[in-house]
Amino acid sequence: MGYLLGIDAGSTNYKAIACDAAGRFLASARRPANTKYHENGWAETSPELIWEGAAACIAEVAAQLPGESCDGIAVASSGEDVLLDGAAQSVYPAIRWFDTRTEAIASAWEPFGRERIYRITGINPNPVASITKMQWIKRYVPEAWARARLWIPIAGFISLKLTGTARAPWTNACRSMAFDLNRRDWSEEILAEAGIERSLLAEPIRPGEQIGALTAAAAAATGLKKGTPVFAGGVDYACGTFATGIIRPGQMLDSTGTSEQLLAILDAPEISSASMEKNFTSVAYVVNDAYYIMGMIVASGGIFEWFKNTFACESFDLLVDEAAREPIGARGCMMLPYFSGRHTMGSDPAARGAFVGLTRATTRGTFVRAILEGLCYEMHSIVQAMQELSGQSVESIYAIGGAAKSAFWMQMKADVTGIPVRSKDVPEAAALGAAMLAGLGAGVYISPEDAAARVQFAERQYTPNAAHHAQYMELYETLNRALYPALREFNAAVTRAQGTNEEK
Amino acid sequence: MGYLLGIDAGSTNYKAIACDAAGRFLASARRPANTKYHENGWAETSPELIWEGAAACIAEVAAQLPGESCDGIAVASSGEDVLLDGAAQSVYPAIRWFDTRTEAIASAWEPFGRERIYRITGINPNPVASITKMQWIKRYVPEAWARARLWIPIAGFISLKLTGTARAPWTNACRSMAFDLNRRDWSEEILAEAGIERSLLAEPIRPGEQIGALTAAAAAATGLKKGTPVFAGGVDYACGTFATGIIRPGQMLDSTGTSEQLLAILDAPEISSASMEKNFTSVAYVVNDAYYIMGMIVASGGIFEWFKNTFACESFDLLVDEAAREPIGARGCMMLPYFSGRHTMGSDPAARGAFVGLTRATTRGTFVRAILEGLCYEMHSIVQAMQELSGQSVESIYAIGGAAKSAFWMQMKADVTGIPVRSKDVPEAAALGAAMLAGLGAGVYISPEDAAARVQFAERQYTPNAAHHAQYMELYETLNRALYPALREFNAAVTRAQGTNEEK
Repeated sequence: MGYLLGIDAGSTNYKAIACDAAGRFLASARRPANTKYHENGWAETSPELIWEGAAACIAEVAAQLPGESCDGIAVASSGEDVLLDGAAQSVYPAIRWFDTRTEAIASAWEPFGRERIYRITGINPNPVASITKMQWIKRYVPEAWARARLWIPIAGFISLKLTGTARAPWTNACRSMAFDLNRRDWSEEILAEAGIERSLLAEPIRPGEQIGALTAAAAAATGLKKGTPVFAGGVDYACGTFATGIIRPGQMLDSTGTSEQLLAILDAPEISSASMEKNFTSVAYVVNDAYYIMGMIVASGGIFEWFKNTFACESFDLLVDEAAREPIGARGCMMLPYFSGRHTMGSDPAARGAFVGLTRATTRGTFVRAILEGLCYEMHSIVQAMQELSGQSVESIYAIGGAAKSAFWMQMKADVTGIPVRSKDVPEAAALGAAMLAGLGAGVYISPEDAAARVQFAERQYTPNAAHHAQYMELYETLNRALYPALREFNAAVTRAQGTNEEK
Repeated sequence: MGYLLGIDAGSTNYKAIACDAAGRFLASARRPANTKYHENGWAETSPELIWEGAAACIAEVAAQLPGESCDGIAVASSGEDVLLDGAAQSVYPAIRWFDTRTEAIASAWEPFGRERIYRITGINPNPVASITKMQWIKRYVPEAWARARLWIPIAGFISLKLTGTARAPWTNACRSMAFDLNRRDWSEEILAEAGIERSLLAEPIRPGEQIGALTAAAAAATGLKKGTPVFAGGVDYACGTFATGIIRPGQMLDSTGTSEQLLAILDAPEISSASMEKNFTSVAYVVNDAYYIMGMIVASGGIFEWFKNTFACESFDLLVDEAAREPIGARGCMMLPYFSGRHTMGSDPAARGAFVGLTRATTRGTFVRAILEGLCYEMHSIVQAMQELSGQSVESIYAIGGAAKSAFWMQMKADVTGIPVRSKDVPEAAALGAAMLAGLGAGVYISPEDAAARVQFAERQYTPNAAHHAQYMELYETLNRALYPALREFNAAVTRAQGTNEEK
């Protein structure tokens, strides 16, 4: 048996890893992503540089495993698309997902019907959706648009460079706001409204299915054997979720870094108007033809980091120790985590952070405890809403990311939500998940269940303490829930006076 | 000409100063006040220790000026009273003003009529009022009460020890909630309700009038000449206000230490129900038979100090420098100063502090600027209310206390209120004001105006910047005013859950 190769093309770095069927790393490589940040807030990168970076990573990995063969390759990437001419050369730079130049174009979708879009795509109109980037290029760079022959997600683009075949993995296509979630195909209705020909789009493909085989040119560029099979990957966080072992409804991922993503597996897409109002996103998952519903706390670990830097604190560990010495409820001090606006549970970019309930006895530990409790309450509200909307109860939460290393925070997440938390340290999760999809396609695994069972990481379990859960729920119901509504008008007025939230 | 002697008997220290007619210090002495803090929150001191401390301070001052004679003595003190038997020996310790054991007794005055009490005394029922302490002793220590023959304010008690004559200076008597503000005499109505005989009370006296002359025993205890005239002093902050040169309507004192007192001179007592609702206190002043109205920000400089200690900041100066680099409005960050509850503008002990409008770009300087701006807005609201209630506009604000040293904060006070601020560093203001009252009585000064003109301190003037004032008022009206109401319910719920504000 040879090795599996997974690639992760993110907006900060390109990575490639080679692993065996148990997910043990045999080799890895990394290159910076060359994203160009313009002074006006735009952020883009050249598709040629994306390919160069990915190919260099693959070559570096292959060089570390001389004589061994690769059983399959798959690519994970962030949500952007690229636009190519008839010779597969780019006609315009790839506009990064967080580049917000298309805000006006996203708003212009409102008359088409917000609910109609949500029911088709599982997404509310917003400038991250790549169809708005395409519309922008069509409107403002017509000469580039005139030369365009293919619109393809980055993961599909790298696979195209490897195989010569253009396919769009489902989960990536879902991020475009032009993909019909129920039919798992491009939406003719939305493409017509945007004035984009269906012929411009790469054909959708199920993650783990084969796209093609390595061409001679790609073999030369990467040092891999010509004919190596290439399989469809997916969006980075969906691949990472698979690598964490999440494959069926009732399992939820909580990935906490600077921001926090909550992602629950569902059998069917959740596209109700209630879900739309709360601004949840529904996307096709990478295995079992499942879907997921996703919510986000925009500033999560980032608030913790901001606090540490703002007040020049020695270390996170020391702060957590101080917080741990404070009682549940942080002596009446509460924090609202909207330091970068509010996303899920009702989008409100004007929302801001707050610390309330302060007295002269409030300590630094009280503040830190209030930050952690406030984040857990926000997480709880999202988990609750996900369960209500989907009618699917969450049996366990898999925690990954920087926060998963904090036993205190993880126990608090279990205590507040009342749901067992399993923290895992999954290295290079997106690239590993892609490798596992390649393994599925190559028949190394007989099923996603088999893959999840064989790729295992040490985990720590946190069981909810029922008494603490009751205490937290009392505080949540009697105090915390009223805070956001109480400050909404103030924050709206501040944002009118000060301009948009600087960290949005 | 001899020297003037002023005594200040506070709850922390006893002080005595000797000065000439220009207020220049010739000698001074200080002793700790021996307040005993009990574990249950009670705080008391022995009247005998009060006299010992004051006498020791006087003796120390007299010893520094051998051969020189004293033209007059007067005593300033905090608001407590003492209870003596027929031989002028105490029957119970003096209960400190901040000892709150009489909360239930104060509440029991409600049926008598809050408005009725306010119209007579200028005070809302509260446990600081010394009549509640007397009622407490009468109820719970009946054997002490049975021996009591004289109830007298501390300033009057020290004068009694000096002269053998028992008199109660007006401003001190006003703090009892048993004094009729209009008639400047004890209220028969309130005494009857409390079940206290008028005969138990020292006769009221106008500050600056002569109480008596030094007895042989007092001369022996202090080293002063027998027959030295002793004049009525007053409550410490009223004496300090006089020392600052404030003698007529239109002049306001802003004394900012841990808490902040705002005190405006009026021609007549302000005892309207609007004033009562806002919890202003009206008291007889020490000169010109004037009155004053007083408001308070319970936690003021104390918030600044709390912030510095909580976040282990290097120095106040550094923090103020950081705040000075932030723009007006602190980038939308606002602070509510109710870290120790709210007193003036509607008493609300359950109120708590808050920082709102935070983003990940919020810096430490932003926090400090928000603290200073929040305190200035609170001050502005009190100044505005005082002007509206009294119909008397404030022409200038005299700033004293620790905050007066900060040019940045003083300029902000001027800019926010739109009123010129004159900062002064008046040393031992209460003792000095008492000495000036002695000087008035002794004929060293022909009038309060004369005293104020001759006792001068270097001052710094801060002229309001009209453009900044307009900016602050816009922020105050559109944002700041809505915050307290928005968080009132939350704070009430927190206090129900957590118990009383720890710093109240």
